[in-house]
Amino acid sequence: MTMRVAEVRVTPIAFRDPPLLNVAGVHEPWALRSIIEVVTEAGRIGLGESYGEDTTLADLNACAARLAGLDPHDLAGLRRIVAETLLGQEEPVAAIPPSGTRRVNVAFGAFEVAMLDLQAQQAGLPLHALLGGAVRERVPYSAYLFYKFARHHGDPGYPTDDWGEVISHAQLVGETHRMVQDHGFGSIKLKGGVFEPEYEIESLRALRAAFPDHPLRIDPNGGWSVPTTLRVLPKLDGLLEYLEDPTATLEEMAQVARAASMPLATNMVTVEFGHVPKTISLGAVQVILSDHHYWGGLRATQHLAHLGRVFGLGISMHSNSHLGISLAAMTHVGMTLPNLTYAADTHYPWQEDEVIAGGKLRFEHGTLAPPPGPGLGVTLDRSALAALHENWVRCGIRRRDDASEMLKHQPDWKGARPRF
Amino acid sequence: MTMRVAEVRVTPIAFRDPPLLNVAGVHEPWALRSIIEVVTEAGRIGLGESYGEDTTLADLNACAARLAGLDPHDLAGLRRIVAETLLGQEEPVAAIPPSGTRRVNVAFGAFEVAMLDLQAQQAGLPLHALLGGAVRERVPYSAYLFYKFARHHGDPGYPTDDWGEVISHAQLVGETHRMVQDHGFGSIKLKGGVFEPEYEIESLRALRAAFPDHPLRIDPNGGWSVPTTLRVLPKLDGLLEYLEDPTATLEEMAQVARAASMPLATNMVTVEFGHVPKTISLGAVQVILSDHHYWGGLRATQHLAHLGRVFGLGISMHSNSHLGISLAAMTHVGMTLPNLTYAADTHYPWQEDEVIAGGKLRFEHGTLAPPPGPGLGVTLDRSALAALHENWVRCGIRRRDDASEMLKHQPDWKGARPRF
Repeated sequence: MTMRVAEVRVTPIAFRDPPLLNVAGVHEPWALRSIIEVVTEAGRIGLGESYGEDTTLADLNACAARLAGLDPHDLAGLRRIVAETLLGQEEPVAAIPPSGTRRVNVAFGAFEVAMLDLQAQQAGLPLHALLGGAVRERVPYSAYLFYKFARHHGDPGYPTDDWGEVISHAQLVGETHRMVQDHGFGSIKLKGGVFEPEYEIESLRALRAAFPDHPLRIDPNGGWSVPTTLRVLPKLDGLLEYLEDPTATLEEMAQVARAASMPLATNMVTVEFGHVPKTISLGAVQVILSDHHYWGGLRATQHLAHLGRVFGLGISMHSNSHLGISLAAMTHVGMTLPNLTYAADTHYPWQEDEVIAGGKLRFEHGTLAPPPGPGLGVTLDRSALAALHENWVRCGIRRRDDASEMLKHQPDWKGARPRF
Repeated sequence: MTMRVAEVRVTPIAFRDPPLLNVAGVHEPWALRSIIEVVTEAGRIGLGESYGEDTTLADLNACAARLAGLDPHDLAGLRRIVAETLLGQEEPVAAIPPSGTRRVNVAFGAFEVAMLDLQAQQAGLPLHALLGGAVRERVPYSAYLFYKFARHHGDPGYPTDDWGEVISHAQLVGETHRMVQDHGFGSIKLKGGVFEPEYEIESLRALRAAFPDHPLRIDPNGGWSVPTTLRVLPKLDGLLEYLEDPTATLEEMAQVARAASMPLATNMVTVEFGHVPKTISLGAVQVILSDHHYWGGLRATQHLAHLGRVFGLGISMHSNSHLGISLAAMTHVGMTLPNLTYAADTHYPWQEDEVIAGGKLRFEHGTLAPPPGPGLGVTLDRSALAALHENWVRCGIRRRDDASEMLKHQPDWKGARPRF
């Protein structure tokens, strides 16, 4: 049964985001995202969700204009169109270059999810079934902890949240209690790189005391130098299931890996398939955080996970601020990966807004089953989409800039990395 | 739309095979194969084709008995059932072991093709579209040359062929002319390991003179020692697009690779995903010959090809004696692999018999487009299947044994390897 793409709509949105701290600064009041609708001639709609930076929007729109007439099954054709649109040429076939395909992967992945949604809808199958079938019925997610300010700086019209300030160890333990109580998460990730490593390790010890059975992770986002990391490594012994991106480069990660007792994970130094050979030859990381938004979609995520099994690399899942379309896609593909041996990251509990009909998806015991029904199982709430798009029009933010936002709070803040 | 497997039939067949020479001896008069039919409750039939050795048949039958009720989309469920049936336990999820999954891969691959055929039929799509879409409309195949005897030894009732004896260089050039004229092949592979390497290299030189523009390969099937290979390597300079399996082990291939001017290819030393890490770390081969029959199906073939792109390994395609179901499957998946940068091997022109309706598939200009229609595009010729099964019942061969067959022709033949 032939389907043909009639139209592709890319709608930029902005949703409320709390003032979460990280190595780059602090989250702005509005997080950007794009909602992709691939509409067939028969009026069926496949959904995708991706980044909302102006550069990504430009790429998505340039490609979207060229997708009419494509069969949503033809992912090879999609890849060709995206590559020709963004690179001005075909991709090399014999080998994946060691860098430079990220733009193509991002745009391809956004449309691929929507086209897979269409394929599964047409087949009357949930997306995970179309992707080869589930190895688990629910996908485990982790509690994603942040230090945070009590409120955004400036405009009194900026969104507020009821999490309050989280700076002290006690405040962080309180945040975690609420997060675990509300969602049942069975493992904990702390976004680090904000304070001196020793302070953040004290936080981890407080979390360990309060949650003795929850695996812990910390992610300083490359904010530590190699000497700093080597200095604090002994303090982390026995405390972590993995240490995520302590340092900023592949070579630095390799140096740390040789001294570390725990696996190193990354979503910063190994972010394209072309990075994998050197990652393996250096032994730089032991866990790769997959992310269909930049690895190139759900089939690419399956390729990555398979590659992980071949080389004995663990697979976890990375997240940026996102809404329910992304969460549904993560969940469907996560159900199909035998070696998703770690709970996936998600910012989702930090987001009040939603763009899918029926409101926020709900975790149970820290896990999520995908919404029932064919495809992704989600449809758009049109009035929510319109309101979130209006946020985007009015908020004026076009590129995420956590550093500038931080300087509004702390004019003497220094963003140079490694920060510690 | 739910499908359920109602019944799985595994029919052993034997078809006529010429007395083709190779390092292990000579092909017997009958080649064995299994035809797999996965029948849904609605009566739809998905087809697969695999090995016909008694060991494989036992595995296929053991699994077949446990597939009723499975949704043909549930490849994860198929994998679980096959592993539990053959291994008595689940497969490890975190890492693929460096050996031992071949039995599971073989059985899984046989059923997976049939289940993908069902999926594509139900979706009304040709199989290549279901697999992500074609990057080429036709798949190139190579002329697969053999030295051969004029006729089989013994029973006058054994099948005959009209290719005659092919031992001399002139006879081999003649065989090639016919093969190229009949099918239009644009590249040439010589099955070697039969005569002294120097003699086979003279054959290659005769082929080069007669076919100056055809890329050449030779495959001694691991029949050469390392010293022999190093001795003859200079004579092969500039003559080959790749040298396939000159030596028998991964370590030997690595020794040869360090001295070789041409890429080394293999279907013998790297035959499971678990072999890949060492293959890469040793730099032992530059081209992997994929084969969905033992790598674990069509999705596994896509994983392998993707892995090849990541590590800059070339991908070609291996073949045993086979009929049209296997050829259709090879062609559909071959259409989807960006880096199938070499023409695929196929024994198909050596087979007179066929099991699919409509008779033999036809190459044009050395390439094949898949049969039109949804799924694999092939259906069974029931009377042909019955006749080929009757061959199997009567021929008495249950395991391929080229060495014993060779001893009937040449009682003083020595099969010890390396032969040279």
